[in-house]
Amino acid sequence: MESSILKSPNLSSPSFGVPSIPALSSSSTSPFSSLHLRSQNHRTISLTTAGKFRVSYSLSASSPLPPHAPRRRPNYIPNRISDPNYVRIFDTTLRDGEQSPGATLTSKEKLDIARQLAKLGVDIIEAGFPAASKDDFEAVKTIAETVGNTVDENGYVPVICGLSRCNKKDIETAWEAVKYAKRPRIHTFIATSDIHLKYKLKKSKEEVIEIARNMVRFARSLGCEDVEFSPEDAGRSEREYLYEILGEVIKAGATTLNIPDTVGITLPSEFGQLIADIKANTPGIQNVIISTHCQNDLGLSTANTLSGAHSGARQVEVTINGIGERAGNASLEEVVMAIKCRGDHVLGGLFTGIDTRHIVMTSKMVEEYTGMQTQPHKAIVGANAFAHESGIHQDGMLKHKGTYEIMSPEEIGLERSNDAGIVLGKLSGRHALKDRLNELGYVLDDGQLSNLFWRFKAVAEQKKRVTDADLIALVSDEVFQPEAVWKLLDMQITCGTLGLSTSTVKLADSDGKEHVACSVGTGPVDAAYKAVDLIVKLCIYRNLRLCLSTR
Amino acid sequence: MESSILKSPNLSSPSFGVPSIPALSSSSTSPFSSLHLRSQNHRTISLTTAGKFRVSYSLSASSPLPPHAPRRRPNYIPNRISDPNYVRIFDTTLRDGEQSPGATLTSKEKLDIARQLAKLGVDIIEAGFPAASKDDFEAVKTIAETVGNTVDENGYVPVICGLSRCNKKDIETAWEAVKYAKRPRIHTFIATSDIHLKYKLKKSKEEVIEIARNMVRFARSLGCEDVEFSPEDAGRSEREYLYEILGEVIKAGATTLNIPDTVGITLPSEFGQLIADIKANTPGIQNVIISTHCQNDLGLSTANTLSGAHSGARQVEVTINGIGERAGNASLEEVVMAIKCRGDHVLGGLFTGIDTRHIVMTSKMVEEYTGMQTQPHKAIVGANAFAHESGIHQDGMLKHKGTYEIMSPEEIGLERSNDAGIVLGKLSGRHALKDRLNELGYVLDDGQLSNLFWRFKAVAEQKKRVTDADLIALVSDEVFQPEAVWKLLDMQITCGTLGLSTSTVKLADSDGKEHVACSVGTGPVDAAYKAVDLIVKLCIYRNLRLCLSTR
Repeated sequence: MESSILKSPNLSSPSFGVPSIPALSSSSTSPFSSLHLRSQNHRTISLTTAGKFRVSYSLSASSPLPPHAPRRRPNYIPNRISDPNYVRIFDTTLRDGEQSPGATLTSKEKLDIARQLAKLGVDIIEAGFPAASKDDFEAVKTIAETVGNTVDENGYVPVICGLSRCNKKDIETAWEAVKYAKRPRIHTFIATSDIHLKYKLKKSKEEVIEIARNMVRFARSLGCEDVEFSPEDAGRSEREYLYEILGEVIKAGATTLNIPDTVGITLPSEFGQLIADIKANTPGIQNVIISTHCQNDLGLSTANTLSGAHSGARQVEVTINGIGERAGNASLEEVVMAIKCRGDHVLGGLFTGIDTRHIVMTSKMVEEYTGMQTQPHKAIVGANAFAHESGIHQDGMLKHKGTYEIMSPEEIGLERSNDAGIVLGKLSGRHALKDRLNELGYVLDDGQLSNLFWRFKAVAEQKKRVTDADLIALVSDEVFQPEAVWKLLDMQITCGTLGLSTSTVKLADSDGKEHVACSVGTGPVDAAYKAVDLIVKLCIYRNLRLCLSTR
Repeated sequence: MESSILKSPNLSSPSFGVPSIPALSSSSTSPFSSLHLRSQNHRTISLTTAGKFRVSYSLSASSPLPPHAPRRRPNYIPNRISDPNYVRIFDTTLRDGEQSPGATLTSKEKLDIARQLAKLGVDIIEAGFPAASKDDFEAVKTIAETVGNTVDENGYVPVICGLSRCNKKDIETAWEAVKYAKRPRIHTFIATSDIHLKYKLKKSKEEVIEIARNMVRFARSLGCEDVEFSPEDAGRSEREYLYEILGEVIKAGATTLNIPDTVGITLPSEFGQLIADIKANTPGIQNVIISTHCQNDLGLSTANTLSGAHSGARQVEVTINGIGERAGNASLEEVVMAIKCRGDHVLGGLFTGIDTRHIVMTSKMVEEYTGMQTQPHKAIVGANAFAHESGIHQDGMLKHKGTYEIMSPEEIGLERSNDAGIVLGKLSGRHALKDRLNELGYVLDDGQLSNLFWRFKAVAEQKKRVTDADLIALVSDEVFQPEAVWKLLDMQITCGTLGLSTSTVKLADSDGKEHVACSVGTGPVDAAYKAVDLIVKLCIYRNLRLCLSTR
């Protein structure tokens, strides 16, 4: 239970000067006088006279190793895991996550995210749906060629997976995209629930089995030794039929069987039972890995995923921040941290190969690139996840962190603000900047780095120390820069409550030729856009005439 | 599993002209030509040449009754429920939810939310923590006097509950605030886990039992017949100690025992077991109601709550949108809809008294008032929860809604856009506006209604029909209006890329006297603020001088 006083009458009582706070300084002369308390572990707490506390943290990827280093990741064999407690993390941020309404990623952004996922240590990256479009194909291919070939000192390299429907063209296209990876995988799917068979596919059960078997065999025949099969809407499929089709695709050569709760309708006990039933009744199941894929329509995806793992699934399909179609998917950070916090106590010793210290940085990158904002109370990575607002909680936190925190912020890569993680300043060089950006997961080309370096210097001139958050803001500005066709040279605006907002604009086109126009509008922004329109439209019209006349 | 093509090559194929779409019209001349498909059930789907579909809905509280009307709510008796399958919904949005960092509600907003919660049919409203501040006290008292006395035709009136620590002053204050309700409840708590006892309370187990027993007895002695007790951090408390303290407070007169997973550390199986153990081992437990309160730190609060209910809890503590301290609480909409969708199939017939058609409106109100934005992929109430982005999903949805939807949007009060719910236009009168606002959950005083009416008319002049979304936007503008001290009369700005942004501002003070100032700034906004500053600071200085000279 959460129990607290929002505006606690005793916030200013002497009990806050507890022995655990060595330094205490008043550093403000504003009418809202504020106290900054700095504890031994560098947590900074600000107290204003309004009686509100806030514990704040800044990002860092340079925090010291947490006490529990991850257990050893077993060597990769498609259909078998040598350690019975190891759970593979299959990240589908770039495929299912990108299907979130409103989230579209450029190829560059996809590559950045894939690099970051490799840093996080995910076992499989589902990089896209190559048959969906030329862009998707190229993005998956590039990721396979680069991230899929970067083997670390422990032999780790992520599997690169491409999705395909159950048809030859999709499967061939997927293979063409992923085959460049050291560990390529094709993931093919077809629906198996009565409702999907009847209304969507309009096929009989026998026809669907035939297609599934042939297509898995076809994928193997291309030379792909790692084939995942998903019976879509498995959560609502008839059990006996499910055992049958799964048994058939195992015989055809599937190495992972993914069990999706496509509409997010199951409760944890049900989903766990489904996995247990499949494990108990599918012929040949001991030769493959069972996987979960849980949608979040009832808010149960994380619980369902854990329940599936507890029942024998050894691959879980997740996305960063839980993004995805409709209410999204199980979120990587929740599943991984639940396994980390409770795997030994409640889940029979399950563990993953994730380096959790990269969670926050990955979360921020995905949030930034997709535009899918996490809510402040998002578990693990939300802005408030480690913020303690109420007086009673803050009192508890000051006395002992364990009173209200079950994991330390450092474990997921959050570091307390004003801490040692802040290293760059105005004396830092280009190399230091590049290194830090790489650590943060951003790989920039030389031109981008040059631009960024001068902007970094400008910030460093004004701030004594440049934080990671500053760098991230600079990078987002830089990588989001589109190629310039028009350049704004000058603009002048007159406006006010009397109306008649007027703007004059001078633009240069791609050849450097200058154009000037003015316009009135219903406000200054409108006036400015209208002036821009006048120039741009005039040029399009001229080009069009030119084009027609030269035909 | 989510399976789809974001930019599906066959989106424009003839298969989309399926027989279920009676009307098909092209209604745009923009370069992004778009098709609007209208199906028999009024779902509007827009297809642009970019190949993206979007199914959109608008809010409505006037949708027709869904096929499953709620089962009968049993009469309220504090420590007993006549129907063994009925689960009480205890909403703590106004108490735990308001503890979200950044979320602060005014008394007026709290009253609006309480009214809306009553419309939703929650069994208990935890209205605040009366001892925390004078404002909190007044807000709880007002809610007790109004919402706590509005009995509907079925005899339903929500219990109004106030939180208190385990001390006489808190409990007396809580009682003073809630006693005006028809059904008042005091909720008192004290921590019981070893870590909280040792570091926070610095008390022995025996001392804590003594305090709990005495304080529950004290609450009853005031005349309160409905007393809830919470052992804070029960999830990490020693089992035998928990049975003992709970047994003691039952003897002292507690009617509900709430079992909080304060730090959100348990997995569903564990939390279910905790409730089952308490039910099996606590003396006298058959005479009270067991309640759950699950924090969301691992993203498992909804699953834990359902697991608790499945194990015998018959009260669940939840918040709208799942807001609350850190990662928040179990969210009302997820718990209620999971029970509604799966109560019969998986949870042994559990049901609630919630009128789910008010969920969306309540969610929007809480989002607006607290400023705690839900993420687009928030289950049930997120902007994307019913949006189908991918080609395969949209194809399925057009063929049969059940392919990808487990509940209808109407069940939670979402109605398809451009539908019959839109009723107000420029001919509508003040009364119709007031009625509609009441239906939406907003109660305005006459002055506010008058202001709003003229703004409503202005919108209606420009739009043929005023939607609920328009009304909500108008109301937020209106109710968020602070009292005017200064009034902006005129402003004129000149700015541009050449610098020297200049602003002239004319303000009227509270006596109506006019003041003019101009200033340059580093941009138009800065210049405007500096001009305002010049006027405001001058006046403060004059008043100060006046004040000093008259001493």
